[in-house]
Amino acid sequence: MEFPSKLIENAVGELAKLPGIGRKTALRLALHLLKADTDTTSNLAEALAKMRFDIRYCQTCHNISDTEQCSICANKLRDHSTVCVVCDIRDVIAIENTGQYQGVYHVLGGVISPIEGIGPADLHIEPLLNRVQAEDSEVKEVILAISPTMEGDTTAFYLTRRLREFPEVHISSIARGIPVGGELEYADEITLGRSIVERQRQAR
Amino acid sequence: MEFPSKLIENAVGELAKLPGIGRKTALRLALHLLKADTDTTSNLAEALAKMRFDIRYCQTCHNISDTEQCSICANKLRDHSTVCVVCDIRDVIAIENTGQYQGVYHVLGGVISPIEGIGPADLHIEPLLNRVQAEDSEVKEVILAISPTMEGDTTAFYLTRRLREFPEVHISSIARGIPVGGELEYADEITLGRSIVERQRQAR
Repeated sequence: MEFPSKLIENAVGELAKLPGIGRKTALRLALHLLKADTDTTSNLAEALAKMRFDIRYCQTCHNISDTEQCSICANKLRDHSTVCVVCDIRDVIAIENTGQYQGVYHVLGGVISPIEGIGPADLHIEPLLNRVQAEDSEVKEVILAISPTMEGDTTAFYLTRRLREFPEVHISSIARGIPVGGELEYADEITLGRSIVERQRQAR
Repeated sequence: MEFPSKLIENAVGELAKLPGIGRKTALRLALHLLKADTDTTSNLAEALAKMRFDIRYCQTCHNISDTEQCSICANKLRDHSTVCVVCDIRDVIAIENTGQYQGVYHVLGGVISPIEGIGPADLHIEPLLNRVQAEDSEVKEVILAISPTMEGDTTAFYLTRRLREFPEVHISSIARGIPVGGELEYADEITLGRSIVERQRQAR
């Protein structure tokens, strides 16, 4: 695709580097910005640059934060004895949106993936162990809330092995089963099998 | 969706204003930028701002350009007696990519759309008529290359009526090799190229 302007070519090139955005979509976005008023573009450019350069990570849980400690870790009303280990900040947002969890988090920053060259040392695993074994540690339970993919399972397995060093800390993982509202007949066999094996007795 | 950081919330909000990008996709893009090195974000922000503030439009054909006249209008080897009228710059790029057209262009900047409140006065129609009736005008043929949608057909009909004032100028439209209701920019190059070569003269 040849462009009549170097400026638009650069903008399209940079936009097309984003995941899931090809050159045609990038061009559509660029033309949208050209049609909209200049504020739209300057606000976008400013917000992106500000985010990238001013963002900080919570020193405790490695969640994204505007301050040294994120609002969840700084919240004294939350249960600091339960730590939910997640892959990235999107998982924190998803779990927070359920409104069902009162504990705190630990963001790994990814999963172990030999293919992509990501080993345990590239993730925030040591800080998690330090957090658990710290002298003033309140941690009584670590919940592994990691997506059940190949890499996710490897990561969970590794974490379980490392966390076994601390027998006073319970390790749990989020329940696997049929999604609420899901059709039984369309569930895959492994999920359905696990949901039968790990069935839960109903309160009477 | 609640975010742990105002900075990321702003960035996601601005990204989600782009067409076809919802808040989940916006968050994915923001997190991608946070993971990538800082250059990725600064290059993107700079390219967007530079494009928006420095871009110029060709004084002759209203195509996007880095200079007062776009490279197509400034090219003496092109056939300045044939003007291809298109809706926006994406159509210019698409037609240029076919390599089948040697004439020049006129970019309307949209189509007549009463629903969106876009009338003939909002498009570069008067400049087209001025271009045709100018004393030093070389224009012998105007090709209407407008997507055959409802609004596109309305625009083509309006243009045909206005151009009838100049009986010495032929009016043609691209051959309907393109499916009715389809968008010009998504047509494959062979179909689009043929539709330029086999353009049909309109009955007066």
